[in-house]
Amino acid sequence: MDNRPIGVFDSGLGGLTAVSEIMKILPDEEIVYFGDTARVPYGTRGTDTIMRYVREDIDFLKSFDIKAVVMACGTASSVSLPFIQDEYDIPIIGVVRPAVEAAIRATNNEKIGIIGTSATIKSRSYEREILKKLPGSEIQTAACPLFVPLVENGRTDPDDIVLYTMVEEYLTPIKKSGVDTLIMGCTHYPIIERAIAKFMGDEVALINPGREAAKFLKESENTEKRVGKGKYSFFVSDDREGFIANASKFLGGRLSGEVSLAPMER
Amino acid sequence: MDNRPIGVFDSGLGGLTAVSEIMKILPDEEIVYFGDTARVPYGTRGTDTIMRYVREDIDFLKSFDIKAVVMACGTASSVSLPFIQDEYDIPIIGVVRPAVEAAIRATNNEKIGIIGTSATIKSRSYEREILKKLPGSEIQTAACPLFVPLVENGRTDPDDIVLYTMVEEYLTPIKKSGVDTLIMGCTHYPIIERAIAKFMGDEVALINPGREAAKFLKESENTEKRVGKGKYSFFVSDDREGFIANASKFLGGRLSGEVSLAPMER
Repeated sequence: MDNRPIGVFDSGLGGLTAVSEIMKILPDEEIVYFGDTARVPYGTRGTDTIMRYVREDIDFLKSFDIKAVVMACGTASSVSLPFIQDEYDIPIIGVVRPAVEAAIRATNNEKIGIIGTSATIKSRSYEREILKKLPGSEIQTAACPLFVPLVENGRTDPDDIVLYTMVEEYLTPIKKSGVDTLIMGCTHYPIIERAIAKFMGDEVALINPGREAAKFLKESENTEKRVGKGKYSFFVSDDREGFIANASKFLGGRLSGEVSLAPMER
Repeated sequence: MDNRPIGVFDSGLGGLTAVSEIMKILPDEEIVYFGDTARVPYGTRGTDTIMRYVREDIDFLKSFDIKAVVMACGTASSVSLPFIQDEYDIPIIGVVRPAVEAAIRATNNEKIGIIGTSATIKSRSYEREILKKLPGSEIQTAACPLFVPLVENGRTDPDDIVLYTMVEEYLTPIKKSGVDTLIMGCTHYPIIERAIAKFMGDEVALINPGREAAKFLKESENTEKRVGKGKYSFFVSDDREGFIANASKFLGGRLSGEVSLAPMER
């Protein structure tokens, strides 16, 4: 039994989709969430900048005596995880490896699609991890830079012409390539899963990296479980009001827990 | 004659639309541009954060011995200018006042529309300035948060259904209110001027704040002119490559001048 909290961070609100999965799969755990809303988005920053942000985010979470960190950010996991894992004495769980393992279990034809921010796609992190484990697989990727602003502006209805036009444009090459599995490589994307599913069709398995990271956490032998009732606290580096107004959309339910401003340097 | 350069800054690339107007209207001037690409966007940040960023941006430009600053950012001008103008010994020219003066000259029916980022609209800066000078006027505003990401992702064609749907949604209440003048209160918006004009109709005057700031600079008696050939240098705080790749779109022509990384703390 280890009653210390689990730390989760993302560049903004997107990581709350992973928090909602951890809440479902590990309802006893205490979670401390940090959304770096002062420095969002990470997806368009340079590598050095992202690395520095990630270290600062983890250091902030570590001040709460956490037992593990979930890096609920496709960009951060893709760009920084291979380099920083060894710098810390607690497990750092990214979203890339759990998602890749789920995709490999799901695929029958060994054709896998990956969508994400420009930085995630450019990093080729998901691609490399898949090819390590399934060298013969065919991979088709697409950067979808407008999905995050569309989600953040509430364009999530599959019948919304603005969202659906972008889904069609971004995903057409992936659909044409005949993938049977698609990794939604950004924590914002599960919010538009219905629009993505509508275009890709029911026969394509959609992998939600936040959900897979939560399952990984549950199965992990390094992380002993907490016993009790789930407890949640949230920190943001800017715009507390915006976070409170929009969090329930990402959590898929009511925001329960205090929201505080984190004293980060920007 | 004052041969010192003019400093121009924005949160990102948008301010280049103002630079292009200064290049046209004051072709002799030397311009030092700073795009704070590491901390873009400003439009969603809190007031304290924006104030701190603006002071740091001006301090950076002042290291080049400039004779004036153009704050080519609707958000920065709206939120910070009234407070910081007195802190500096050189003129700080925002985009709000020149745009408002142009709108007042343009309107016949005293019905004026204003569009901008959420922070700009919430600040009511344009609105207050208009009402000071034209107390009986009717003002209709709309925040258009998706315009910046749409422009940055190249959705600028008036026939693009994604862009045009958003133009229709955001501008319908303004059009219905019968304005004859519309202030495009964000430096990104002149890039989609054709789409805005297509929806609003030819009879509505569109005010480009960057252009008005350039004219204001030309007419300003406080700022003596430079004699010579225009000279340009550009600084960004992150993603130099992205700036180089996209600058010409905002400049409406070739990027001429060095692009360097500014050593800002984030």
